[in-house]
Amino acid sequence: MTRPGILVHYPPHERLVPKLGKLGAVTRYWDLPDPLAFAASPEGQAIAVATVVGPGPIRRDVLDALGGLRAIVSAGIGYDGIDLPYVAGRGLQISHTPHVGVEDVADLALALVLASTRRVIEADAWVREGRWDAADKGPPHRALRARPVGIVGLGEIGHAVGRRLAACGAPIRWWGPRPKSDAPWPRAGSLMELARESDILILCAALTGENRGMVGTEVLRALGPTGLLVNVARGGLVDEDALIALLREGALGAAALDVFIEEPTPHERWRGVPNVVMTPHTGSVTDRTMPMIDELVVANVRHFLETGKVLTPIPEQAGPK
Amino acid sequence: MTRPGILVHYPPHERLVPKLGKLGAVTRYWDLPDPLAFAASPEGQAIAVATVVGPGPIRRDVLDALGGLRAIVSAGIGYDGIDLPYVAGRGLQISHTPHVGVEDVADLALALVLASTRRVIEADAWVREGRWDAADKGPPHRALRARPVGIVGLGEIGHAVGRRLAACGAPIRWWGPRPKSDAPWPRAGSLMELARESDILILCAALTGENRGMVGTEVLRALGPTGLLVNVARGGLVDEDALIALLREGALGAAALDVFIEEPTPHERWRGVPNVVMTPHTGSVTDRTMPMIDELVVANVRHFLETGKVLTPIPEQAGPK
Repeated sequence: MTRPGILVHYPPHERLVPKLGKLGAVTRYWDLPDPLAFAASPEGQAIAVATVVGPGPIRRDVLDALGGLRAIVSAGIGYDGIDLPYVAGRGLQISHTPHVGVEDVADLALALVLASTRRVIEADAWVREGRWDAADKGPPHRALRARPVGIVGLGEIGHAVGRRLAACGAPIRWWGPRPKSDAPWPRAGSLMELARESDILILCAALTGENRGMVGTEVLRALGPTGLLVNVARGGLVDEDALIALLREGALGAAALDVFIEEPTPHERWRGVPNVVMTPHTGSVTDRTMPMIDELVVANVRHFLETGKVLTPIPEQAGPK
Repeated sequence: MTRPGILVHYPPHERLVPKLGKLGAVTRYWDLPDPLAFAASPEGQAIAVATVVGPGPIRRDVLDALGGLRAIVSAGIGYDGIDLPYVAGRGLQISHTPHVGVEDVADLALALVLASTRRVIEADAWVREGRWDAADKGPPHRALRARPVGIVGLGEIGHAVGRRLAACGAPIRWWGPRPKSDAPWPRAGSLMELARESDILILCAALTGENRGMVGTEVLRALGPTGLLVNVARGGLVDEDALIALLREGALGAAALDVFIEEPTPHERWRGVPNVVMTPHTGSVTDRTMPMIDELVVANVRHFLETGKVLTPIPEQAGPK
């Protein structure tokens, strides 16, 4: 009996290879000198399932050549790196890892809000460098209290972020393309209206074909010179060049970003840009969530190989609830 | 008619001098070449009220010599710099500024918890220095979720901190010397028990004669090598030398501190001490709270000069509610 082939695309999934190796013949994508030649080889044709990370796609020409591929198992809740019409056309199944990272991503959103408003990075340097003296505590902090917060995208993560900021006494509004009957906070009439009425705008939306770049110059100018943009969703929601230009000219107050158009973001791009806090897409990279995501990835591969179906399909492929 | 004398002791209160100057003859303490000689002079004897900041006392010999002094107006909620038996013996009135900073101090506690657990300072440097690559996102983060939090001192600030961390999904316990019938969370049997059962210990207690240095080697060892100590109350609650020694040897996991035994803390003291985040006592130093504290300081001086009574006396001097 031939062992099914498993292609591992995301380098940190090296840590899953011992477990995946019990389920099939594992190939590490990053070890392939010529991925296209591999795809055309007998081993490549035997690849039945590939593990990837949400925002990072496999090259289209390689996907095309992997004739035996039937499922893509994606780590993380977002799967915007995957071309849905393409995979639907090929009949590929796709799984993701919903729910498990929600609370950690929401905590990081709060960490970014507070690091920016309370100037934690500058304050720490101020103390360490001996600049604190009795008459000067460094740059002033902004209180959260009564500062209007706008949440863009009221899914699980948006709810979890809102719950935290409500506990800090901030009034919450939100916007998303569709009204939600279970929303505990009022919905703004539009993204522009939300930006205009918010001091802090927090992006919690999935990236889709429709909303790429929707947070552009106009929205950022509406947020304004005392406004803070926080992004824990996807860099692609934002016109990042406009963001950098507006921060440089002071037309936007501050930004706190876990996600970027390109990841890793080229660091030269941020040199001299004022009032930015950045983290390297670590929303769900915690000691509690990472093991759960890893387990779900392995469980999806196992379930697919045993039953022909992934365990936690993306919403577009899940049946009615 | 002689104008009453007002002694301003805290250098940042320079910003209040225009308002205080309308109420009396202002002397800036930091301008005095010889405070004791001033106190003995006619101008010194005319000083009726002095404004100070909570943790920073006026020299005892100067206080003794200010024969006309009848009230001390303190900025901030804590007034541990003031020797209560001494001022009671002299019949001095003391006011502080309760309530106004509570939410901001609680926000800073949360900012410190999250900056430490989510490694915001290192993560930001990681991105800026171009160390982020696809396979390495830097040091791992710790999730808050389900991580037991212990709050020491369940006053207004302790409640506000607990409410925030409960919204993050952390189980909350607390300890204080007296049970509280309105406590929404269970009380530990002792500080040691709370430290043993907590991953994160947050100090929110007033500093009194009884609790100085109560967080010492034993309590910090009970918190342990994965534990985080957060202090937004007073440095004097902690044996700071023990704290530094235990951090250096890894017997305590991390600390996030807004307050110190000596303020400003000598920065050489913290050189090479691992896993510490520090802010320069900025719990209530925000754009919302500072103006409210300033107003309360001026209002207390005015009310005292008009009526002979301060407006917001400390609890020890307030009548029954």
